[in-house]
Amino acid sequence: MKSNKAPGNGTEKREYRFAPRMEKTPKSFIREILKVTENPDIISFAGGLPNPALIDVEGIAKATARVLSDDGHSVLQYSTTEGYLPLRRFIVDRYKKRLGLSVLPEEILITNGSQQCLDLIGKVLISAGDHIAIERPGYLGAIQAFSLYEPVFHPVNLDNNGPDPAMLRDTCRQNDIRLFYGVPNSQNPSGVTYSEERRKEIAGILKQTDCLYIEDDAYGELSFSGRSLPSLRQYIPQQTIITGSFSKILAPGMRLGWIVAPPEVMEQIIIAKQASDLHSNYLSQRIAFEYLCQGTIDTHIAKIQEAYKNQCECMLRVMSDTFPDSVTWMRPFGGMFVWITLPEGCSSMDVFDAALKEKVAVLPGVPFYIDGGGNNTMRLNFSNSTDQKIISGIGRLARVIKIECGD
Amino acid sequence: MKSNKAPGNGTEKREYRFAPRMEKTPKSFIREILKVTENPDIISFAGGLPNPALIDVEGIAKATARVLSDDGHSVLQYSTTEGYLPLRRFIVDRYKKRLGLSVLPEEILITNGSQQCLDLIGKVLISAGDHIAIERPGYLGAIQAFSLYEPVFHPVNLDNNGPDPAMLRDTCRQNDIRLFYGVPNSQNPSGVTYSEERRKEIAGILKQTDCLYIEDDAYGELSFSGRSLPSLRQYIPQQTIITGSFSKILAPGMRLGWIVAPPEVMEQIIIAKQASDLHSNYLSQRIAFEYLCQGTIDTHIAKIQEAYKNQCECMLRVMSDTFPDSVTWMRPFGGMFVWITLPEGCSSMDVFDAALKEKVAVLPGVPFYIDGGGNNTMRLNFSNSTDQKIISGIGRLARVIKIECGD
Repeated sequence: MKSNKAPGNGTEKREYRFAPRMEKTPKSFIREILKVTENPDIISFAGGLPNPALIDVEGIAKATARVLSDDGHSVLQYSTTEGYLPLRRFIVDRYKKRLGLSVLPEEILITNGSQQCLDLIGKVLISAGDHIAIERPGYLGAIQAFSLYEPVFHPVNLDNNGPDPAMLRDTCRQNDIRLFYGVPNSQNPSGVTYSEERRKEIAGILKQTDCLYIEDDAYGELSFSGRSLPSLRQYIPQQTIITGSFSKILAPGMRLGWIVAPPEVMEQIIIAKQASDLHSNYLSQRIAFEYLCQGTIDTHIAKIQEAYKNQCECMLRVMSDTFPDSVTWMRPFGGMFVWITLPEGCSSMDVFDAALKEKVAVLPGVPFYIDGGGNNTMRLNFSNSTDQKIISGIGRLARVIKIECGD
Repeated sequence: MKSNKAPGNGTEKREYRFAPRMEKTPKSFIREILKVTENPDIISFAGGLPNPALIDVEGIAKATARVLSDDGHSVLQYSTTEGYLPLRRFIVDRYKKRLGLSVLPEEILITNGSQQCLDLIGKVLISAGDHIAIERPGYLGAIQAFSLYEPVFHPVNLDNNGPDPAMLRDTCRQNDIRLFYGVPNSQNPSGVTYSEERRKEIAGILKQTDCLYIEDDAYGELSFSGRSLPSLRQYIPQQTIITGSFSKILAPGMRLGWIVAPPEVMEQIIIAKQASDLHSNYLSQRIAFEYLCQGTIDTHIAKIQEAYKNQCECMLRVMSDTFPDSVTWMRPFGGMFVWITLPEGCSSMDVFDAALKEKVAVLPGVPFYIDGGGNNTMRLNFSNSTDQKIISGIGRLARVIKIECGD
């Protein structure tokens, strides 16, 4: 036996040999933080949950009862890897209506939430040592998913209008960048929405390369104005892969997302999906479609937009009233987060620790930076809060910041 | 830009660069075959579906209505990566009761069907070039899932009592085998159930090595006798990872499986699961638990066992009556399949083609062999058939075999 480990007798402590890719995954920092903040006494702005009060439980329960009574034996049986065709057609129609975007049902596959899109993209497109680019700060879930495929990450700074074009161009010139991952609408964590001009510019740069744009559109429907900006697929259709999610507009517990990719890429994604878990939850797919057919989804989404806009406004107002002037932030166009920059040299980890003692939880920004930095940044979630909690929690946080960072 | 590809202008046919791992995945042979056999005029023994008539739609609908009305906002929200704790505790209790096996809830994680267990095991344990062993013939879903992590496969022949101990010992001596994947109960595709003696022997061999045993127990509850044989975890607890499934006893469309692993391995599996899709469908987990609490699951499983036993008996009887003596098979102890060996030199692909013309579909055995061979084998599914279809379909198949293979 070639192993140099002592043979086990079944009782002593074994040493396991894990695939080296597991060492590349960032420590599950957020998971640890969220555990700390589970205490119900704590006002938490650390998580990223939609407001449960805005889940239409009654409508979903009705849709569920209907699919189970009309077609129970089929909705509980195995199904196709690509996903329920009528649901994919619904997504096609919605792209047409919302963005004027042409997508074929064959270009869509239903996933277990949009996090799985990132895993499938990694499987199909990333080999160890491949170069990929990501926004700075970048979505932690993507960093975690892609890290398992051992790429070399290159950061592209975000400003108020989107990714820095010069930095993206240079990065692509200096490296064979396989894909650039971004969240163009209400980015997580920064809240930035790319301007239309910037979208065109980014697409123009990518068009000159072999680099694919991974457009994570988890928050596209959560724009406060209800207005949608074009997908990069509009400009570079063969180079854009879109990931979508029903978690923010329907219900996260159903774990339904989707991926849109050109046919040649989709062919590989189907193979990867089949090997990964055969197909997505068919019961949930059928419930979602039945629910969406009720025709109330636009009203429901408008209600979410309005509620999150108000919660965001409340948080920004209390921040303006109580935070020292040295603390800055960007006004989000939508989504669920406000991104805060503390004065240079003030550590958001210290603020986190001190705030926790005051029973308020924030999310330090460090894990969103693949290349270090971001020590003075933090993310605040407003979607899963009430005005009362926001007023009380932000007030306490302001006092902590004044002590930690100076007034 | 370092790529040697011509820059795209957005309209011409692009060439995509996929990760080399995608080339390692076997062509989706079964998928293609199943497409051919979707025609409702065809009597298909090619698939692997449970009998939809044995899904307790009414019971599941009741459980669903209850969780949505009692706790709707919570069951539709995000949840934990490990899965719903009461469901994991139910699994713990069932292992205790059914197998006398001690498992901690912390050693269990809920997956999207047991196929996802295989993907997570690949992620955590297999690097390109690692040596792994698999039964010959071996489960195709495992070959597909593991292939994406680019191991070197080593086959271990199956006989009536399980894997060949001498071959396993030699393989472990000659290579640093990281894991050995097997299906000890009603194996897919062969129907073999390891004898108790052989289980001890296999465990004894593995105990002298660093090799983990991946015990895929998708069919453990489908033993025709209702009797269960010990898990290898009984003998080598720290070296055994078990994968389980609710697909065969509850409903496949809910995509619920689980993985049992020692704590140090589980820690890595949780990280991989979080990166892969955050957590499994929470609504389905809650429905499953609510359903299982009704206390009717044992009666329901007994009903499935009885039905499959009868369908299997029917198939074996018609085969005995009509197949030429040169065709052999093993009597399954449970599960959903009969494994057929045609006379040497007779191709099951030819039988497949000829049978399809007679509107009967079988599954050729070739893709279950990682090292070639198996040309004269095929798998027949009996779980998703009626006696009438079995009598008519096997009769037609017998005529085809006589023509293709001689009488």
